[in-house]
Amino acid sequence: MTRILDVRQKILKQNDETARAMRARFHDAGTFVCDLVSSPGAGKTELLTYTMRELRERGMTCAAVVGDLATNNDAERLATSGAPAKQILTGTMCHLEADMVAESIRGWDLSTLDALFIENVGNLVCPATWDLGADKRILLFPVTEGEDKPLKYPTLINTADLVIINKLDLAEAVGFDRELAIHNVERVRPDVPVLELSVRNNAGLEAWMNWVVHHVAADVPVAPAEASSF
Amino acid sequence: MTRILDVRQKILKQNDETARAMRARFHDAGTFVCDLVSSPGAGKTELLTYTMRELRERGMTCAAVVGDLATNNDAERLATSGAPAKQILTGTMCHLEADMVAESIRGWDLSTLDALFIENVGNLVCPATWDLGADKRILLFPVTEGEDKPLKYPTLINTADLVIINKLDLAEAVGFDRELAIHNVERVRPDVPVLELSVRNNAGLEAWMNWVVHHVAADVPVAPAEASSF
Repeated sequence: MTRILDVRQKILKQNDETARAMRARFHDAGTFVCDLVSSPGAGKTELLTYTMRELRERGMTCAAVVGDLATNNDAERLATSGAPAKQILTGTMCHLEADMVAESIRGWDLSTLDALFIENVGNLVCPATWDLGADKRILLFPVTEGEDKPLKYPTLINTADLVIINKLDLAEAVGFDRELAIHNVERVRPDVPVLELSVRNNAGLEAWMNWVVHHVAADVPVAPAEASSF
Repeated sequence: MTRILDVRQKILKQNDETARAMRARFHDAGTFVCDLVSSPGAGKTELLTYTMRELRERGMTCAAVVGDLATNNDAERLATSGAPAKQILTGTMCHLEADMVAESIRGWDLSTLDALFIENVGNLVCPATWDLGADKRILLFPVTEGEDKPLKYPTLINTADLVIINKLDLAEAVGFDRELAIHNVERVRPDVPVLELSVRNNAGLEAWMNWVVHHVAADVPVAPAEASSF
């Protein structure tokens, strides 16, 4: 058991180094990068497709990469926004790693991208320990999963910079207790910002887009002379 | 990378051996054992609580163990059925392993149990490769996750003996296409039985209880002289 932990530590360290290099590269290019994590079917693709379409309408450039064990479904859905989207097929792997993202965006000129979205494999456990070099990690909880998920999956929420309570349109149908859910988020991760959204009901989207645009605007590229190569 | 695969193979092999011994022990005791897997919040605990209450009302004995990273919430909910329920806390671990189940049921007299339910950690990827010694693995897809999840998470569905499409009560609210969902299940795993359920709307529960009771009845204990110790 010690041996597998040692090997795992080495691989995690390697991942952290790749992620650090990617973060520097994103920063130099002025590309704001988000990593979206959640259970399967929490609405990541729907929210990202909406978001990229909105950003494009506001004159901003963006792209997405998305991880799944199988199928190109999500990349195809994301591409309906008009923005480039690439599928990463993980086979049996339960999370994305930094080098998979690096490989996926090879050939993309980051300096032309205001924002890059990384949609992780649907999994509320394993992505926690894998840094992808993103500026922000966004964790989605749909109301359909119940109010106690923040308490039951603390490791991932502890790495999140923003929590989205998603699928508000179904809150009434499932008897969702929003105060309890927010209380549970705050018990695990006090002071993390929480947004409540529904793309279908057009609820909370202005606050969400303000959050995105604020961070995109803050991420200005550095002068070319300082740019690092990758 | 070869090294971590070697170590992983060794641990998986060890798990398979423990699972095999447990399966023999369950068989000798005449205990029918189910492993329930799904994403977080798919309704495993709700269905199991209902099922154990029903079995008890029919004069059958049952118990459950349930895995979560944190909280005893699910064991407490399961215990409201009147049946014994034990929580397994996995910390950061994304799945149950056979020795965790063995440790959890230590001290239980299996010969007094007609059925044992193992509720796995909510995760649609990682439990796939970990045999827990159960007779049957049941995979739940709630309608709220969308119709394409069988295609996107083929590894787990390939280990399932029964697929349950759950939360039928929300099918209309989310615009669920049941024919497409069943078609997608069959594309990955032809001939696997599929049940459509809602505990809240009391839909499909008779077929489900028939399935359970049929398997419980088929699992009769062997004569004491043949029973193996564990």
